Amino acid sequence: MAGEGAEQPTLQYEQTLMYGRYTQDLGVYAKEEAARLRESSQRRSLSDRSRSLDLLEYKGRCAKCQICTVRCQKFLISRVGEDWIFLILLGLVMALVSWGMDYCIAICLEAHKWMYGGLDSNVLLQYLAWVTYPVVLITFSAGFTQILAPQAVGSGIPEMKTILRGVVLKEYLTFKTFVAKVIGLTCALGSGMPLGKEGPFVHVASLCAALLCKFMSLFGGIYENESRNIEMLAAACAVGVGCCFAAPIGGVLFSIEVTSTFFAVRNYWRGFFAATFSAFIFRVLAVWNRDEETITALFKTRFRLDFPFDLQELPAFAVIGIASGFGGALFVYLNRLIVQFIRTQKTINRFLMKKRLLYPVLVTLIISTLTFPPGFGQFMAGKLTQKESLVTLLDNRTWAKQGIAEEFDYIGHSQAWKHPQVNVFVTLVLFIVMKFWMSALATTLPVPCGAFMPVFVIGAAFGRLVGESMAAWFPDGINTDGTIYPIVPGGYAVVGAAALAGAVTHTVSTAVIVFELTGQISHILPVMIAVILANAVAQSLQPSLYDSIIRIKKLPYLPELGWGHHEKYNIRVEDIMVRDVRYITLNCTYRDLHNVLLSGNLKTLALVETAESMILLGSIEHAQLQSLLSQQLGRSRRLEYIREQAAAEKKRLSMVSNTGSEEDSHRVSQEVRFQISTEESSFSPTRPSPLKPLKPALKRSSVAERPTELPTSPHENSGIALKNLFCGVPDPEALEDDGDVEDDMTLREITEWEEKQLDEQVNFNNCKIDPAPFQLVERTSLHKTHTIFSLLGLDHAYVTSIGRLIGVVSLKELRKAIEGSVTVKGVKVRPPLASFRDSGTSSSESEATELHKLWDRNKNMSLPREQTPSESDEKSQ
Amino acid sequence: MAGEGAEQPTLQYEQTLMYGRYTQDLGVYAKEEAARLRESSQRRSLSDRSRSLDLLEYKGRCAKCQICTVRCQKFLISRVGEDWIFLILLGLVMALVSWGMDYCIAICLEAHKWMYGGLDSNVLLQYLAWVTYPVVLITFSAGFTQILAPQAVGSGIPEMKTILRGVVLKEYLTFKTFVAKVIGLTCALGSGMPLGKEGPFVHVASLCAALLCKFMSLFGGIYENESRNIEMLAAACAVGVGCCFAAPIGGVLFSIEVTSTFFAVRNYWRGFFAATFSAFIFRVLAVWNRDEETITALFKTRFRLDFPFDLQELPAFAVIGIASGFGGALFVYLNRLIVQFIRTQKTINRFLMKKRLLYPVLVTLIISTLTFPPGFGQFMAGKLTQKESLVTLLDNRTWAKQGIAEEFDYIGHSQAWKHPQVNVFVTLVLFIVMKFWMSALATTLPVPCGAFMPVFVIGAAFGRLVGESMAAWFPDGINTDGTIYPIVPGGYAVVGAAALAGAVTHTVSTAVIVFELTGQISHILPVMIAVILANAVAQSLQPSLYDSIIRIKKLPYLPELGWGHHEKYNIRVEDIMVRDVRYITLNCTYRDLHNVLLSGNLKTLALVETAESMILLGSIEHAQLQSLLSQQLGRSRRLEYIREQAAAEKKRLSMVSNTGSEEDSHRVSQEVRFQISTEESSFSPTRPSPLKPLKPALKRSSVAERPTELPTSPHENSGIALKNLFCGVPDPEALEDDGDVEDDMTLREITEWEEKQLDEQVNFNNCKIDPAPFQLVERTSLHKTHTIFSLLGLDHAYVTSIGRLIGVVSLKELRKAIEGSVTVKGVKVRPPLASFRDSGTSSSESEATELHKLWDRNKNMSLPREQTPSESDEKSQ
Repeated sequence: MAGEGAEQPTLQYEQTLMYGRYTQDLGVYAKEEAARLRESSQRRSLSDRSRSLDLLEYKGRCAKCQICTVRCQKFLISRVGEDWIFLILLGLVMALVSWGMDYCIAICLEAHKWMYGGLDSNVLLQYLAWVTYPVVLITFSAGFTQILAPQAVGSGIPEMKTILRGVVLKEYLTFKTFVAKVIGLTCALGSGMPLGKEGPFVHVASLCAALLCKFMSLFGGIYENESRNIEMLAAACAVGVGCCFAAPIGGVLFSIEVTSTFFAVRNYWRGFFAATFSAFIFRVLAVWNRDEETITALFKTRFRLDFPFDLQELPAFAVIGIASGFGGALFVYLNRLIVQFIRTQKTINRFLMKKRLLYPVLVTLIISTLTFPPGFGQFMAGKLTQKESLVTLLDNRTWAKQGIAEEFDYIGHSQAWKHPQVNVFVTLVLFIVMKFWMSALATTLPVPCGAFMPVFVIGAAFGRLVGESMAAWFPDGINTDGTIYPIVPGGYAVVGAAALAGAVTHTVSTAVIVFELTGQISHILPVMIAVILANAVAQSLQPSLYDSIIRIKKLPYLPELGWGHHEKYNIRVEDIMVRDVRYITLNCTYRDLHNVLLSGNLKTLALVETAESMILLGSIEHAQLQSLLSQQLGRSRRLEYIREQAAAEKKRLSMVSNTGSEEDSHRVSQEVRFQISTEESSFSPTRPSPLKPLKPALKRSSVAERPTELPTSPHENSGIALKNLFCGVPDPEALEDDGDVEDDMTLREITEWEEKQLDEQVNFNNCKIDPAPFQLVERTSLHKTHTIFSLLGLDHAYVTSIGRLIGVVSLKELRKAIEGSVTVKGVKVRPPLASFRDSGTSSSESEATELHKLWDRNKNMSLPREQTPSESDEKSQ
Repeated sequence: MAGEGAEQPTLQYEQTLMYGRYTQDLGVYAKEEAARLRESSQRRSLSDRSRSLDLLEYKGRCAKCQICTVRCQKFLISRVGEDWIFLILLGLVMALVSWGMDYCIAICLEAHKWMYGGLDSNVLLQYLAWVTYPVVLITFSAGFTQILAPQAVGSGIPEMKTILRGVVLKEYLTFKTFVAKVIGLTCALGSGMPLGKEGPFVHVASLCAALLCKFMSLFGGIYENESRNIEMLAAACAVGVGCCFAAPIGGVLFSIEVTSTFFAVRNYWRGFFAATFSAFIFRVLAVWNRDEETITALFKTRFRLDFPFDLQELPAFAVIGIASGFGGALFVYLNRLIVQFIRTQKTINRFLMKKRLLYPVLVTLIISTLTFPPGFGQFMAGKLTQKESLVTLLDNRTWAKQGIAEEFDYIGHSQAWKHPQVNVFVTLVLFIVMKFWMSALATTLPVPCGAFMPVFVIGAAFGRLVGESMAAWFPDGINTDGTIYPIVPGGYAVVGAAALAGAVTHTVSTAVIVFELTGQISHILPVMIAVILANAVAQSLQPSLYDSIIRIKKLPYLPELGWGHHEKYNIRVEDIMVRDVRYITLNCTYRDLHNVLLSGNLKTLALVETAESMILLGSIEHAQLQSLLSQQLGRSRRLEYIREQAAAEKKRLSMVSNTGSEEDSHRVSQEVRFQISTEESSFSPTRPSPLKPLKPALKRSSVAERPTELPTSPHENSGIALKNLFCGVPDPEALEDDGDVEDDMTLREITEWEEKQLDEQVNFNNCKIDPAPFQLVERTSLHKTHTIFSLLGLDHAYVTSIGRLIGVVSLKELRKAIEGSVTVKGVKVRPPLASFRDSGTSSSESEATELHKLWDRNKNMSLPREQTPSESDEKSQ
């Protein structure tokens, strides 16, 4: 869920060629964040001072006016905290951004057309103009985003899905990313490549919301609440889609389907409110700009209302749905294949990594060459932009018959589909096939881009193809009741568009988007039938495009339970949990702590009462323990010890000699390891090897206590500062008692001292403990575990049996369990150990004896086991 | 959440005049349930036997055929488990039920018209026909439901909301209720009263789903899974709404908004799938019945597409929205007022309770008298049915001008609005005002009925009123760009309908329903704006109609956090939790158990390690403990004791005399109290008084051990059987050692024996313990607590601090906290104790010392407190 902000490890973006990846690297980020926080608090106090100065100056002039102003200000500030103010602002900003981008994109496309059109005397020049323009734009877009903010690459929906689940992606919602995304997207779409804008718009809207939150937090404290901000981000996603298609309802639904697992109905209105306002402004701008007379749909259709389709046409719509399902799955597969091919081909990869912009240039070159209108483009309506294609595809005239001519004004564009030598069916088929792989290829470009719109257009073309075939087959319509109702191929196009888009994204709400986009709802049943069938087919074959990207980017996200998940009801937590839990006890020594920390890389550790009782008391973060350990062995403590020693042994002679340099160096390395492991071991997937040559600066600062052996670090406090960062509170002692006591211990002394320190019991006083980590019971079903993990955004949960810790389940195990029995095509695989459950009582008996043993200490009284496990499972909710 | 089935206390329906109530009464229900289970298992084994017999007989005839059949059967059974099969069946059944009901209702209404029309010679006869018909139908409906299944009364949405939250309402989903609801609803709607069908349809669909589940569980085991069935119920709600309006998308969204707090997106497709299929079949039936040519919307409108509305009309739409918001709140208030007035007026209430059918008769009489067309009805289009009114209101001609005549065929109905003497505006106003209170009154009738449709019609009339006013004000439209686009009052009616329905139900999805109902989406922006404004106004004034009914019926439901819930982020669990938790310790005696059980009426008790450590180990149900206690003091145990005694003291003389009859009777009463409290004290709000004269049969069976004083009960085992019921497993010992040992203990002996028994330590071996009850931390915010409670469907949660139990929060406290700071109109009240939190460390210090005291036993080591409480709160998720 929300609000895990600073505590959670942040994921950092890692630049790879295809779909840059997020990886965990807390250390650097934490440092930066601390610096930033310090800086901002300084800045704020400065600005506060200057503001009060201003006020003083102002006071002199007019006291009455000032009181009034203060009151107004107070009122405004109190109002500013209201959700609806924020949502209106968000809607307004997004509408303006969206409209501005649309305007720029339109100009770019116009310019492209104009260049191409002006050079019609020379085909070579024309070709150069046709090809160079998108290449330049895409290259610029790729380069710009690469330099400014590589996080802006791609769709944004997978990342938003992850963020809304509670994971913090570093620098994903910054102003830099915003600029990169907006400009990059404008250029990418302006190039005329088959790229979409709805995914990036979700990201842009989220960026707007995040920046607005930051801005608004200057006024009121409410904007610093993390969980509220997550709610606002969810609304922003809806605004993004709603604004992109001027489809408030569809936008909200689409964003819910695409980003959420569990949706809070109480947040529903937020999305609707903001999306409606945004869509309203977006369309009003068009009216004010005299583009349109009044607010209507973006791709208005004019199908007849009284008899939109015949009942007997429904099988054709169903066919479109099923075929779209296969097509959608193929698209996702193709897209992933391309990414994986280029990633795995080492030589290509190495070459492309060096020349980062070569890949976009090549792809753009290929695509634009193939669409060159006088060339191959003439067979696939290559000169039409996406928008023009869509408008012509949704046209309510029939092309195949070419009989009825109505009073529509975009006949010009429709001409692109008619080739003198080639049948319109061939043109459509070529268009579908070519655009299919082109879109799958283009969406792998390292520019901000989505795949929704290209897929939508392809779907419309496919629907049109079916519709035209039907029209050719039944020239007078199917209805036999006297009146002739000819078949409307445009309706088929609408159905196809919704179905294919739904199949690729695994959403049903594309149906609603389609209605809002076309302004007609008359085809509701065919659209719904096709979309549901497409979803059924696609979901059983492939993950959605966004889940596919999540997998490619290895984002921490839980896969959904699939359609037919009967067997999920039979897997229990005990089948998937890790029984070897790493824990610390209340009475452990620092040495135990040290060993536990070295032995694993878990983010949190369980705190139990004693190793015998195993009663779970809470969980402690790895970093907290690291800081405990380094505090215990740290310099300030040693200095204190020296001071005490000095007082006690002032008279005694120093008997310690300075021999044994071998051991010395070993001890140094040991200490270094502690320091490094503070940062590394909890986040790097492998165990940190001692003396790993990473972060020399850090090493320096920690070894700086022996100034004779290594150069002194400029900031002696950096190690402590780092510790404080993990500890959460500044440690004033550590800062003050520096310098007045000389650190004259030899390495041998240090070794001895540390050994002694390690044998002390851990004092958990300064350590943050999570007193109620989430607990499950062995009998909890996988289905319920999945629900709870998704609902609460958990990362891991402890499995307890009557207070006793017996295992741990993390996202990893859960993911494995789900994927292990879902992705095996068709065949349902029983999960490991599941078969043991049915076959009897042996395991529960052994557990019972274990329990007896455990509880014997409680005055020889054994605790009961639940008799009907399944019931206790039901009850434990 | 799901699956709490048998464990949760079932709520039983209690018949009161207005909105029958559900109350808790486990005892009787549990008995019935056990009897039913026993019976059904017997029946099943019988049917199994007969089936195998049939097979044997069949085998002789044709072996090959049989193998084939078995294979087919197996295949079918494996398929039957699939969700989509179930959903298709559900959709099909609901479509048929819905269509059948619509057909019957139409016939009823037709008959009413025919009777009224046929008697136009005599006004008195006409009046009698007009009035008697609905009175008879409503009376029949009320009587029928009252007799067959009083649970069928009312809407059904509030109850479904409660059921989906995990509460079990007794007999709410039975076949009897289904029959009562369907027939009752048909009669109620056929009477022509202003009643709706969408709420009851939700209930009917849920009933269908529940019955189908039961039916399907004959084939496969998957249908016995509780959590799956809850998912299916959620889908059924969508089917209900979708089928009622032939609006699949709106149906799904409306049902989500109205019944869920958190919605699992993975269940989304279920609703869409079933609702689409259902809507499809529903409309196809109409086509097959030759009512319509093809599948179109129910209330098809024909507004112009190219210029649906002018930008400058938007303020008028906004006004409709705001006014509808106030109107919706007023409707809810009025409805509640009527119920409460009749409930509180003792004399009226007593009178009406005696003559249960008098109230419906009176209300129907008043309403039908007022709508009598030749009487007052002529000023309010009284002769139109709801459907006809709606069709005329959505008409796209303008009435005020009465100029443009178009080729529409229902001019006949529109005539009803035009009175020769009275302006159409007056008619509309009268219609709105009269229908408003009539609908509010009619929905309090004890018949199956909803309020959506009446409200929808009123909203449409209001919108029409505004639209006609606008049309009268701007006869040539507002647009000044040359083309004349006259104002379309029908569009206003659409907006008004959506807005008022949205305001009453607090939903946004009425917008979508409106689009699907009219088949036009051109007014999307006005509708969305009006609906959102109406929701904003209504939600800040009153709860939704369904929440209002939930409150009236006192159903166990958690209210929503309101719109502006900033202060909710500041309330913590420690402010609202009950610190005086009742608990039992692992090493407690039966006497402690007895005292704890007598002192409270909680459903579950916390089990802690020791009273000093307070480490929470789990929770035990009250009933479980009761059974433990009665087992310890029960007859079978005493008989065993006697047997032992007899063996040891065979030779000794019986020294116990039979004096002290006073003490005897006291002892009997004491034992009786134990037995009764097994059943009563956990559920009755007050402590059971000793010798409460309830359940004489039970008392008898438990005192039957002294056959000389009281008549022998026919079933001596009934007390034990009851215990076993609570215990969950049959106790074979208790049944076998009956009769061979004589119970020759005197009452004094029994007293002594029981005192001895009470001092023994409790043996929890045969007791079901929930090992992981839900835990919160003191610092958990109210907002998060609410989220967790709604997400997981919790009833209570323990508050722990590092394993130590410090408090408990139940739904009651949470509800109080939410209502305490929300329902106080306008003014935000700070919750009790909230102010203490900000003002410092005193409380946390005292807690810290307490903690130190506690943890000192762990080798004198004090456990730390978290330093930044707000962060730990964020973390504890």
